[in-house]
Amino acid sequence: MTVSSQHRVRMGDCDTAGIGYFPRLLALVDNAVEDWLVRTVGIDRAGMLLGQGLGQGLGLPTVDLKVEFTAPCRLGEVLDIAIAPLRLGTTSIELTVSVCVAGAERFTVKLVQVLTMLVTGIAHPWPSDWRRSIVAQIATSHHEECDQ
Amino acid sequence: MTVSSQHRVRMGDCDTAGIGYFPRLLALVDNAVEDWLVRTVGIDRAGMLLGQGLGQGLGLPTVDLKVEFTAPCRLGEVLDIAIAPLRLGTTSIELTVSVCVAGAERFTVKLVQVLTMLVTGIAHPWPSDWRRSIVAQIATSHHEECDQ
Amino acid sequence: MTVSSQHRVRMGDCDTAGIGYFPRLLALVDNAVEDWLVRTVGIDRAGMLLGQGLGQGLGLPTVDLKVEFTAPCRLGEVLDIAIAPLRLGTTSIELTVSVCVAGAERFTVKLVQVLTMLVTGIAHPWPSDWRRSIVAQIATSHHEECDQ
Amino acid sequence: MTVSSQHRVRMGDCDTAGIGYFPRLLALVDNAVEDWLVRTVGIDRAGMLLGQGLGQGLGLPTVDLKVEFTAPCRLGEVLDIAIAPLRLGTTSIELTVSVCVAGAERFTVKLVQVLTMLVTGIAHPWPSDWRRSIVAQIATSHHEECDQ
Repeated sequence: MTVSSQHRVRMGDCDTAGIGYFPRLLALVDNAVEDWLVRTVGIDRAGMLLGQGLGQGLGLPTVDLKVEFTAPCRLGEVLDIAIAPLRLGTTSIELTVSVCVAGAERFTVKLVQVLTMLVTGIAHPWPSDWRRSIVAQIATSHHEECDQ
Repeated sequence: MTVSSQHRVRMGDCDTAGIGYFPRLLALVDNAVEDWLVRTVGIDRAGMLLGQGLGQGLGLPTVDLKVEFTAPCRLGEVLDIAIAPLRLGTTSIELTVSVCVAGAERFTVKLVQVLTMLVTGIAHPWPSDWRRSIVAQIATSHHEECDQ
Repeated sequence: MTVSSQHRVRMGDCDTAGIGYFPRLLALVDNAVEDWLVRTVGIDRAGMLLGQGLGQGLGLPTVDLKVEFTAPCRLGEVLDIAIAPLRLGTTSIELTVSVCVAGAERFTVKLVQVLTMLVTGIAHPWPSDWRRSIVAQIATSHHEECDQ
Repeated sequence: MTVSSQHRVRMGDCDTAGIGYFPRLLALVDNAVEDWLVRTVGIDRAGMLLGQGLGQGLGLPTVDLKVEFTAPCRLGEVLDIAIAPLRLGTTSIELTVSVCVAGAERFTVKLVQVLTMLVTGIAHPWPSDWRRSIVAQIATSHHEECDQ
């Protein structure tokens, strides 16, 4: 299964050259990853972070990131951001993200996140119910490509 | 008439204190103002900017801004951003923005934008059909308050 | 006394119209306000926030903000951001910020911040040594204007 | 030769978990890349972009990006961002970026940029004087590591 969300490229997402500015495009991807988490394991970052008091809960920092840009994103375009899990480790997850406009690929991202106890900075094993949900999603995911 | 949009407060919208960071909250308001423009006069910023070539079209820079924060916005909350036009000048517009969470006010914004020729930097009178649409909306707007 | 800092307008500070995007310009001002705090009372936000554990310390949220834009800020320009305290309340401070390029005013900001216990959200009186430093600075501040 | 710059991690650079938010850390890296360009070939992005009219000049979009995070960046820390060119193609450049705090590595970036005519979107060969400056820098660069 792939989880998709849409985002229109805004004035503040673009730079002076009139195209999507990559750090902000990656913030949009991070938002979509947050939505993926909610839809997949049923908890959002606020719940993870704040559930046991601010800074005492769990975080999911990104530790590895690969981005390939195929074509520029332009002001006003609607990005289709599709996320699928690739691999689940004891404490980590690898996600693949495909960003398309009207079926044409704009950029792709592969990223690894690690479930982390924020107070100690130590990696934390996936809770078994989260693990079950993610494994089920990996089983039904296909490699996402833009459909033209 | 008031134009409303919703936005969930994201990880990247908050600061280390765990509350919405005001410059990013204002970027969310700016996005909502862009949506207001589209719904009111039927043109987006890309159309205004790029219609006649990048940088040769019209822009709508904000020249005056007043913000009052009533309560902090927190990670995961859904902001209701409601926009109503207050006054229309020859080349300018004053908008009022009310941002609420579940009916409770978080902050309000008053801002003035000026329609501007981007090449020359000179203010440009509102096209008459845009003016008509905005005036009609002012006539039916009420002072927006959060409903609890 | 006025505390000044410089910042070059970056690609990522501008929007598609090729001028400084106001939410990001306000983030630059917020950085300068942080520098002002360090130079005036000798503590940075990390110290305030984290000194007694993340989220258990003090914050200085902005509760009121007024911005007037005189002229657009452009890519590559160096902003002179000058900050002076105007008024000190029991728990609040009003600052005035003047942003110039080569002596010409681009925008001005007035903002009010309130010293706040982050756990409870309750305003906290200024520590007496911070108060002394700020009062001394108010006494020697002059209304800042760009010098051409 | 390696070009270095420093940046203090700001309130607005961090997220609710109290650590540097990766999209904003990458914007800091992009700023440093801009500084590298200025110091190496003597032209900034404004000059490239605007020299022949907005959007009619050259841009240097990032087309490939790899980031590895070793340790979190924290509020108030000063990042040392060191940039060295690795490889120069006909129209592209590969840069390596090392980000350290007090000699300890926080993250590394490898990125490829392509010199591009913004109007047409077509890659553009490096001007020969820029090429000469970059080649000279590659010859004297060493693989950058944090020195403890």
